[in-house]
Amino acid sequence: MWYEPPWPRSSPVSAFRDRRARLSRALAPLCALIAAGQRRSKNYPANTFPFRADSHFLYLVGRSIPGAALLLGGNEPELFVPPTSSDDVIWTGPTLDEDELGAKLELPVRPLPDLPDRLRDLRDMHTEVATVSPNEEATAEWLTRTLGRRIEARRGAALADGSADARLADALIDLRLPHDEAAVAQLSHAAIVTHGAHVAGMEATRPGIYEAEVSAAMVGAIMKAGLTVSYEPIVTVHGEVLHNETHHNQVAAGDLVLADVGAETPEGFAGDVTRVWPANGRFSATQRAIYDLVLDAQQHAISLVRPGMRYRSIHEGAARRMLAGLVDLGIFRGSVDGLAERGAHALFFPHGVGHLLGVDVHDMEDLGDRAGYAPGRARPVRFGDCYLRLDRDLKRGMAVTIEPGFYRIPALLEDQELTAPFEADLDRDTLARFSDVRGIRIEDDVLVTDDGAQVLTSHIPKEAAAVEQLVAGR
Amino acid sequence: MWYEPPWPRSSPVSAFRDRRARLSRALAPLCALIAAGQRRSKNYPANTFPFRADSHFLYLVGRSIPGAALLLGGNEPELFVPPTSSDDVIWTGPTLDEDELGAKLELPVRPLPDLPDRLRDLRDMHTEVATVSPNEEATAEWLTRTLGRRIEARRGAALADGSADARLADALIDLRLPHDEAAVAQLSHAAIVTHGAHVAGMEATRPGIYEAEVSAAMVGAIMKAGLTVSYEPIVTVHGEVLHNETHHNQVAAGDLVLADVGAETPEGFAGDVTRVWPANGRFSATQRAIYDLVLDAQQHAISLVRPGMRYRSIHEGAARRMLAGLVDLGIFRGSVDGLAERGAHALFFPHGVGHLLGVDVHDMEDLGDRAGYAPGRARPVRFGDCYLRLDRDLKRGMAVTIEPGFYRIPALLEDQELTAPFEADLDRDTLARFSDVRGIRIEDDVLVTDDGAQVLTSHIPKEAAAVEQLVAGR
Repeated sequence: MWYEPPWPRSSPVSAFRDRRARLSRALAPLCALIAAGQRRSKNYPANTFPFRADSHFLYLVGRSIPGAALLLGGNEPELFVPPTSSDDVIWTGPTLDEDELGAKLELPVRPLPDLPDRLRDLRDMHTEVATVSPNEEATAEWLTRTLGRRIEARRGAALADGSADARLADALIDLRLPHDEAAVAQLSHAAIVTHGAHVAGMEATRPGIYEAEVSAAMVGAIMKAGLTVSYEPIVTVHGEVLHNETHHNQVAAGDLVLADVGAETPEGFAGDVTRVWPANGRFSATQRAIYDLVLDAQQHAISLVRPGMRYRSIHEGAARRMLAGLVDLGIFRGSVDGLAERGAHALFFPHGVGHLLGVDVHDMEDLGDRAGYAPGRARPVRFGDCYLRLDRDLKRGMAVTIEPGFYRIPALLEDQELTAPFEADLDRDTLARFSDVRGIRIEDDVLVTDDGAQVLTSHIPKEAAAVEQLVAGR
Repeated sequence: MWYEPPWPRSSPVSAFRDRRARLSRALAPLCALIAAGQRRSKNYPANTFPFRADSHFLYLVGRSIPGAALLLGGNEPELFVPPTSSDDVIWTGPTLDEDELGAKLELPVRPLPDLPDRLRDLRDMHTEVATVSPNEEATAEWLTRTLGRRIEARRGAALADGSADARLADALIDLRLPHDEAAVAQLSHAAIVTHGAHVAGMEATRPGIYEAEVSAAMVGAIMKAGLTVSYEPIVTVHGEVLHNETHHNQVAAGDLVLADVGAETPEGFAGDVTRVWPANGRFSATQRAIYDLVLDAQQHAISLVRPGMRYRSIHEGAARRMLAGLVDLGIFRGSVDGLAERGAHALFFPHGVGHLLGVDVHDMEDLGDRAGYAPGRARPVRFGDCYLRLDRDLKRGMAVTIEPGFYRIPALLEDQELTAPFEADLDRDTLARFSDVRGIRIEDDVLVTDDGAQVLTSHIPKEAAAVEQLVAGR
């Protein structure tokens, strides 16, 4: 059931050993059982989605082993793996036995059927065993049976403060928030492969092509490198639909293509990048004006990244910068301060400026806002800002995305309840001149260093002229 | 939550209406509730696998609508869909309202919250409501709450005979086994796109390339056409691992590449094709000998396909034909009859010759062997043959795969318990001369017609010379 993957850029075994050791120390005397999860059936049991282990498991073990579980605490960490059947060698090939796998991982590996005895020993010693809420019910049921208490799927957000599971969640957050050297190498590798995808997408684009063809070129570049997509690709001429996952439109000469596509390494680390390019290799004057405005807001937001900076302030900084640009273009009238205070930016920028990045694209979002929001902080209630997924003070080693955007969303601009407070500020005639802009978002992956932002995806063309050259250079 | 997909080759609305009407008539006075299923989280709730509805739902409705449910029986079929939220228009774009969707589908569409009342009405009329076992627990829990009785996930195989659910399963099997005109058009479209994938794979192959690159070229061809893969691609130089899903090997000059890759249409219909080609564009003499032997067995098996033929006889026919070839090559000694009777073929061909094909690659395997095995028939117990997934008498309109293979599986050939009965028949010295053959499988998709087999995938190169030309023609 487990393989030896000579994948590109595996992290050293010591990285995982260190992570496990740090978590064990932080938890003691609490123990933790972290399940990898089960293969999931697409339409019948033998036809499954590609298996991808739970992110916490992947972070601590480094490979996706279906049905496995990591036990931390007590003495040393132990990995419990399901026994292989005699069929496995025919259908899925030779496997490492427990000793071989243990030697590879530098971690004692034991058969999963031994786990109940081990847990009984811990109970006899009155040791509590915490766990993380899994993403699917089959693993929740397995954990429920195994730990003898009710574990619900996808309930990480609702942990009772002070409970063993909450303490484990908080320890995992503390561990995973600042990226270690191996994690930074993984994020950098994901960024390099993500670069290849975006260049392939720009190079493939020409008027008349279908979105599906551009998407295929981008995903193909990721697959070729032995990686997978970290989320379903957004490749669309309707960039105003924020999470558009359909790819059936034909790209017209005057269209902008918005591509939000990222690669994921076998250890789970994600790239998450958005670029926008003109189908015919040349931005119109109106497209260029908005593109440069979004790019300016993004660069400004990146310039604010440094240890100690509150992420919400970066969001607000990007929003203000965009408002200033919109006032310059005449789309908004009045003072930037006044507009910002009333949240006018959300009419065109109705989402947060970014989120944590790591083994998950929205890192640790399985724990709800517990990871993204510092204790005592909660989501803004105002429309648009309420989608902000992160509000912590940045620390060295954190990785975040910075991704402001401008969208003309008809349903939003026609929503009188939303627009009424801004009707006097909004010059709809001027806005109408920008009708060839539907949605522009520019997104990079940024590591927080002592010197400020290190843009992991800086090699992916972003200046309008550079983007045009790649598209037109075919 | 539901979109208007102008996908390639949608079936006419009347096809789905006819399917629903036929099922309703077959079930009356029983009713049926068939759930589409839920989006499934990959690593946290907002990051989901691409949504693909339950196959029975897809067969009857034609589109993947997360959270929807089809109610059949009573008066006319009704589709219940989850309400859209005001966020949806921002994140997933404009949606059809219930009336618009209903007009498209020619099917009354109602909000999902109305379903409980509708079910109460049916209960008041003492009407039983059958359902199908879903593939995941979240939908099983929803069905359990909605129908007020315990519905388990993935338990289609274990239906109590005579129960309402068993009657529904049998009616679905009767309906789906012979493909209607729209289904044949879908299977043909999947076959055409699958053709493009295999040609792309052959053309991309050269010594030194990685399996992942060949796989990317094949999947890219499928994605470009707006389709998805019907199962995780097998693209490997280790064809002896039957369901090898790793793609990390480099392809050497003398290697054979085995690619088992198929496309799936948005309505769910699958292609499922295996081809094998030499990395350097030229089969060695030993590779060619085994390739031609497998091809001969496959052609022979295809020639047996006709209405009334028992599928197990086709499996046995392919096995005998392969044994005859192996005796000719000197790998086996003795009489083909004697070898076949003792199951010697399983040493090199340890799987069934194929399976049903339709909306599922293994069509209706969610119902266990209920679809694949005619009443009163059960799986063979003998090693190898026990993997046969189908044993029905073929009928006009059924689609099946025909896919014999030859594999040198070290673990199997070294298993003394398995090989002991054949040690006297097996010429291991001769076998050793074929060491450059690891695994060869040749698979086509075949429709049963009154005139015999119609090979839907006949345009995909298969003769050794044609395959060589495509690989070397780069």
